[in-house]
Amino acid sequence: MNEVNLNCPLPFNQHSTVLLSHGGGGKHMRELVENIIVKAFDNPTLRSLHDGAVIKEKNARFAFTTDSYVISPLVFRGGDIGSLSVHGTINDLAMCGAKPLYLSCAFILEEGFPFTLFQKIIQSMQQAAMACDVTIVTGDTKVVERGKADGLYINTAGIGILEHSFDISPKSIQIGDAVILSGDIGRHGIAIMAEREGLSFDCPIESDSAPLWKPVRELFQERLSIHCLRDLTRGGLASALVELASSSGLSIHTEEKAIPVKEEVAGACEILGFDPIYVANEGRFVAFVSKSEADRTVDILRKFPMCENACLIGYVGERGGKVFMKSKIGGERIVDMLSGEQLPRIC
Amino acid sequence: MNEVNLNCPLPFNQHSTVLLSHGGGGKHMRELVENIIVKAFDNPTLRSLHDGAVIKEKNARFAFTTDSYVISPLVFRGGDIGSLSVHGTINDLAMCGAKPLYLSCAFILEEGFPFTLFQKIIQSMQQAAMACDVTIVTGDTKVVERGKADGLYINTAGIGILEHSFDISPKSIQIGDAVILSGDIGRHGIAIMAEREGLSFDCPIESDSAPLWKPVRELFQERLSIHCLRDLTRGGLASALVELASSSGLSIHTEEKAIPVKEEVAGACEILGFDPIYVANEGRFVAFVSKSEADRTVDILRKFPMCENACLIGYVGERGGKVFMKSKIGGERIVDMLSGEQLPRIC
Repeated sequence: MNEVNLNCPLPFNQHSTVLLSHGGGGKHMRELVENIIVKAFDNPTLRSLHDGAVIKEKNARFAFTTDSYVISPLVFRGGDIGSLSVHGTINDLAMCGAKPLYLSCAFILEEGFPFTLFQKIIQSMQQAAMACDVTIVTGDTKVVERGKADGLYINTAGIGILEHSFDISPKSIQIGDAVILSGDIGRHGIAIMAEREGLSFDCPIESDSAPLWKPVRELFQERLSIHCLRDLTRGGLASALVELASSSGLSIHTEEKAIPVKEEVAGACEILGFDPIYVANEGRFVAFVSKSEADRTVDILRKFPMCENACLIGYVGERGGKVFMKSKIGGERIVDMLSGEQLPRIC
Repeated sequence: MNEVNLNCPLPFNQHSTVLLSHGGGGKHMRELVENIIVKAFDNPTLRSLHDGAVIKEKNARFAFTTDSYVISPLVFRGGDIGSLSVHGTINDLAMCGAKPLYLSCAFILEEGFPFTLFQKIIQSMQQAAMACDVTIVTGDTKVVERGKADGLYINTAGIGILEHSFDISPKSIQIGDAVILSGDIGRHGIAIMAEREGLSFDCPIESDSAPLWKPVRELFQERLSIHCLRDLTRGGLASALVELASSSGLSIHTEEKAIPVKEEVAGACEILGFDPIYVANEGRFVAFVSKSEADRTVDILRKFPMCENACLIGYVGERGGKVFMKSKIGGERIVDMLSGEQLPRIC
């Protein structure tokens, strides 16, 4: 076994070990993924670091994606690990511009896990899948000893089909593109935080967990020129934008006041010391479209309940690979990723 | 939340919890899968309970499968969780008669896991994938806190394509079919057991973990009439045969003396009190072919190193849904599944 030599700021050497932040959707995770995983499995599809892989077979384009769900707690206001594990994977397919078709599901159960809760979670998965016209066609079940897991982990992989000819990817982002955000941010992270810490708010905050294929499909059906889509998960809006700016080599210019944050979420963030642009979401995405189609994109999205707060939040510029944000009081700052994330085990 | 009422022998009620045996590939697991999971997700593809799903898209047939790997220890004689997670999923595709094309990989890492070991495992995955002309195209990484996992769990999902028109499934098994076993049994289970318990043998036993697509492909290329394929994993040869007899509604007749078991494995089984027909394998399968093609099937398989001990082990009869085995001393017994498995966390 040779020493790992990775030319990266993290101490990846023979003594270093995995930190929680390596799963956080921030810088540490990106370094782990790029320097260890993508380097070893090197191939063009994986290298694109998109939400899923687009593969060509039999003159058709399919999307293929996977996610493991390790969220804690398993049940939260607005969903549970079951619905989340369906929405999350469907959303990754949708972000490739693919119509979700099939899901696999694999359970890692801890010995002693209550069957009633397992059945509730399974039913929640099935309801979420049915609501999205997706079929769970294959699965796997493993059980590990007490203390060797944390109740239940779920993996879902998904297959979708691309029914258009666009190349939906960071490489397709163009200078001048409008950046559309599909709704207010931060609800999922704050809902989980509240559940975990036993916080209560006057207006309880529900997770935004939702399947995004239907609004995305509508954008395609309305023949908008969509260049790139990305859902906001771990690391929040900020990390998604930073990743896209970096992958596209272009700059993204946005304004704090343009980004919708529900009053309760903003209040909770203030109390907890969080910046909402880093808080996790599970039912929000950004779309990069031609500037001339920005208003139409917003109008179409707003027809869907989970996108009723959709809005234009900025534009793409040419100042290489960075995200610039104008603050509410006027100054401009460069937005960076966090090293890890604010909250571990958010999805 | 309603009480679970499942008409099955297990105490699935509001107080019951998951046992280790529910992950064991035996009766308990089958009950869990059939009565909770398949019942909720009900659809014809899942109901077939095959190693993977066969789905039709764009006038082609694809196979889709998933497996989580929770093996302990992570590294063992003859492989590690990395190679196992590639072979296992490739084998499930092969058992659908599908050429493996693409894999996803999802890691659940425990905080504190050493990077050197992670990198070794990743390299092992990549080598296994390359050896099988399979590309790892998409992935996911999650980290859970110390004590919330057992080092590393891996999920891989796979997509393959069927390049023939056979319906490879338990329903295609016919009375009179020959049952061909691809090699000697029990090596994987005994190798893991030895590693776990610190046992040493004069001739160390290596896991049989191996990718099975190449021998299977050869059977298709030689135009043999393959009716069904099944790899032997948790629960061993016995559980695979019992499942197939039950799914096909036919009987399977085999003889103990026809089943190859390496001397060292037989010796270890004797010491440990195991019956080798229940011991796990990761590179063995059974093929159901027309009786007239039994010899040719064996000859073709034996050309491949991992199948050099391939042999005919029995025939299919019409005595509804059971497996009958003639013992070495002459009597016949009905083979049943174990409730759980001999060893948890074998894959």
